Amino acid sequence: MATRPAAALLAIGDELVLGEKLDTNSQWLADQLGLAGLRVIDHQTVPDDRDVIASTMVGMLEHAQVLIVGGGLGPTKDDLTREGLSDALARLTEEAQPLIEDASALRDIEAIFEKMGRAMIESNRNQAMRPRGASAIANEHGTAPGLLAQIEREGTPHVLACLPGPPREMRPMFEGALAPILQALPGVEAAELRVSQVFGLGESELATRISELMHRDNNPAVGTTASSGMVTCRVRFEPTKPVQGPYESDAPATAAEEALSAIEAVASGYVVSQRYESLAATLLREAQVEGLSIATAESCTGGLIGQLITAEAGSSATYAGGWVTYSNRMKTQELGVPESQIQAHGAVSPEVAIAMASGARERSGADIALSVTGVAGPGGGTSEKPVGTVWIGVASPGVPASARGFRFMGDRASVRLWSANTALFIGLLAVRARLDLRLLREVSAVSR
Amino acid sequence: MATRPAAALLAIGDELVLGEKLDTNSQWLADQLGLAGLRVIDHQTVPDDRDVIASTMVGMLEHAQVLIVGGGLGPTKDDLTREGLSDALARLTEEAQPLIEDASALRDIEAIFEKMGRAMIESNRNQAMRPRGASAIANEHGTAPGLLAQIEREGTPHVLACLPGPPREMRPMFEGALAPILQALPGVEAAELRVSQVFGLGESELATRISELMHRDNNPAVGTTASSGMVTCRVRFEPTKPVQGPYESDAPATAAEEALSAIEAVASGYVVSQRYESLAATLLREAQVEGLSIATAESCTGGLIGQLITAEAGSSATYAGGWVTYSNRMKTQELGVPESQIQAHGAVSPEVAIAMASGARERSGADIALSVTGVAGPGGGTSEKPVGTVWIGVASPGVPASARGFRFMGDRASVRLWSANTALFIGLLAVRARLDLRLLREVSAVSR
Repeated sequence: MATRPAAALLAIGDELVLGEKLDTNSQWLADQLGLAGLRVIDHQTVPDDRDVIASTMVGMLEHAQVLIVGGGLGPTKDDLTREGLSDALARLTEEAQPLIEDASALRDIEAIFEKMGRAMIESNRNQAMRPRGASAIANEHGTAPGLLAQIEREGTPHVLACLPGPPREMRPMFEGALAPILQALPGVEAAELRVSQVFGLGESELATRISELMHRDNNPAVGTTASSGMVTCRVRFEPTKPVQGPYESDAPATAAEEALSAIEAVASGYVVSQRYESLAATLLREAQVEGLSIATAESCTGGLIGQLITAEAGSSATYAGGWVTYSNRMKTQELGVPESQIQAHGAVSPEVAIAMASGARERSGADIALSVTGVAGPGGGTSEKPVGTVWIGVASPGVPASARGFRFMGDRASVRLWSANTALFIGLLAVRARLDLRLLREVSAVSR
Repeated sequence: MATRPAAALLAIGDELVLGEKLDTNSQWLADQLGLAGLRVIDHQTVPDDRDVIASTMVGMLEHAQVLIVGGGLGPTKDDLTREGLSDALARLTEEAQPLIEDASALRDIEAIFEKMGRAMIESNRNQAMRPRGASAIANEHGTAPGLLAQIEREGTPHVLACLPGPPREMRPMFEGALAPILQALPGVEAAELRVSQVFGLGESELATRISELMHRDNNPAVGTTASSGMVTCRVRFEPTKPVQGPYESDAPATAAEEALSAIEAVASGYVVSQRYESLAATLLREAQVEGLSIATAESCTGGLIGQLITAEAGSSATYAGGWVTYSNRMKTQELGVPESQIQAHGAVSPEVAIAMASGARERSGADIALSVTGVAGPGGGTSEKPVGTVWIGVASPGVPASARGFRFMGDRASVRLWSANTALFIGLLAVRARLDLRLLREVSAVSR
């Protein structure tokens, strides 16, 4: 396989270097560049320092054909990416690259202020400046235009692009203006991605079982990432390159199907979906198809499950709502959990989990109710019920309410996230069980 | 001021370079290094490639006196940080630095497997290897020992340390083993940090008003970061260095107090606390001091407020629980919101926000109840109530329940986070108002 063009990422900002702010752009951009068909080779983060910016840009372009720079395009005198780019381009092109005002960029900035009914602040005029050999990229979500320089080095086209730091300005600019330019570079093969998400199976166990698929040179190649129980298997392939690896098909797209089947055979019973989406999104989608509504009753997760569900747009079609019954009074008064059960078994018990789920289902009128009660820590653990002990209850149509017990590892945040994800997964199984039950009933009807 | 020793960060891992995983270690380490008294100059991220690791280490040590490396210390053959360090040290010390087995590290690894009742996996033996000129750092939370090399270059001591990638192994190792070594380096002045958090005031507006305090060379120097309405002002000072900047005192700690007072004068009415903690933590702390309990009734935030509150350990002492009344049925049946009000004013209205808060206060028995109802988007907006319209209600002792209306900008996640934070801030104001009322009553009692 010919090597894909190398790309590098440079994040600029004192606040990033000093750790005052978390850089999430580099991860997003690296992922996008990989999908666009480039090979990301490294990331750097440097301060708002004109000379450092310029020399880092020049240095990174010694190994990379594409350099994407983020941040430092604001209006203040601390924002020096424009100046750094000007110096770097001068060195790379061996001609002066003074900053000049871009008339179109200036009009765009003025229009934003006009829309807000305010006069343009003089410092924002800086944002319309660009090195002579670069062009401005329009920003539809803010005042900072991007900057783009396309230069020839030793017969090879190089791309040096500067994007604004705020993700909601940077992402559409990358997708709209930059990705098409990168995809047109010689040797760039846009990759395609298929995904299989599985829940509750250890990532390393899964990786061991599919290790043959995971060699980096394979086409398709499988990679895994894990987050609080959810393992995302990414099957990446280049459609126009030959298949490489333990596949029967010689068509990459079909081989990708083979990879997905192999993963799902290994992860049987743990499969969530073939979409790159949250567990809550899968649950909502499948519940909506079945016309099932959902309610929640949370103790140790304290609203986290509701939050994950309602983070999805359109969740109101399926999610009725829920209770955060943090105190025992809330459990008994609002969900009808018998006080005698709390006294006999403790609030963290299968009995209480079941009563919470049943109460939530009944009172909300939802089809399926999920409940969680557990010891998230750091305090509250006992030898019998150590920190991490969690009971998850589910009440759904046509079957008795039930609960399952877990012992989750890690700190409070980790126990809570695992608990919430496990509850969502159990909700998904309940939706699918309902599917199976329905099928069963239909079969019964036919055979009657 | 003498320049503090420069430090650099190197993150290693294909999954980081490719964007499959978000690097949070670099931010944490940069912050810690700054507080330890070093000057962070840059971060890099490179793949699991022995030659790249070695040459990047050597390159970064040309400018930095301290290099902290994270990741690539796992047991598999993809983990090449040990090998990279061996090569880098050979170049830096101009003598061979073969990997040798560290007897003590091997015993530690074997002990971990013994504790789990399993035989050590052969590949884990790799983790006990270290370059001859480096030492192993014990890992109390995992099988990967850290590696530490202290070398002299041009008469200056340099530190090159490799830490494991998982944060729960890396952080205690940095704090326990590495920070003391760094603080003992000549020229390192541990800095101290004071914090003032303010809510709801624009960061740029605040920064403009205190711009004199924000010069980087000041001692103390003020920096700001903002996240969903919460602006954190960090007042950083070096106790043994002279005061520099617009301060009256010549003692850095007293000057830091001046800076805090100046910030709080500018941000009067918006001050949250002088602790580096979440809004929920401040609310819980102040409510607990006053013996006040809290409940929540959430619509568009869907459990987010409860989640933020219960993310704090010990919240059960103050937080009774809440409702996620996503559907109108939940609002009327569970919180007693009159259906007529929903019909007359819509679910997103001050009337419904007030009824939700009153209902939640009454039913939970809590002292203060907070409610949120709004249009988080992307759908559901109208010309009268566009996306971002949010009403926040509060019911507290001795005053009529009330609601305030907001128009938040941004996407669904952003509207929800602003809504939740604003509700928590309003809860804090309610706790403090209660304080004022109590004082008033006491004065009345005395004057009677």
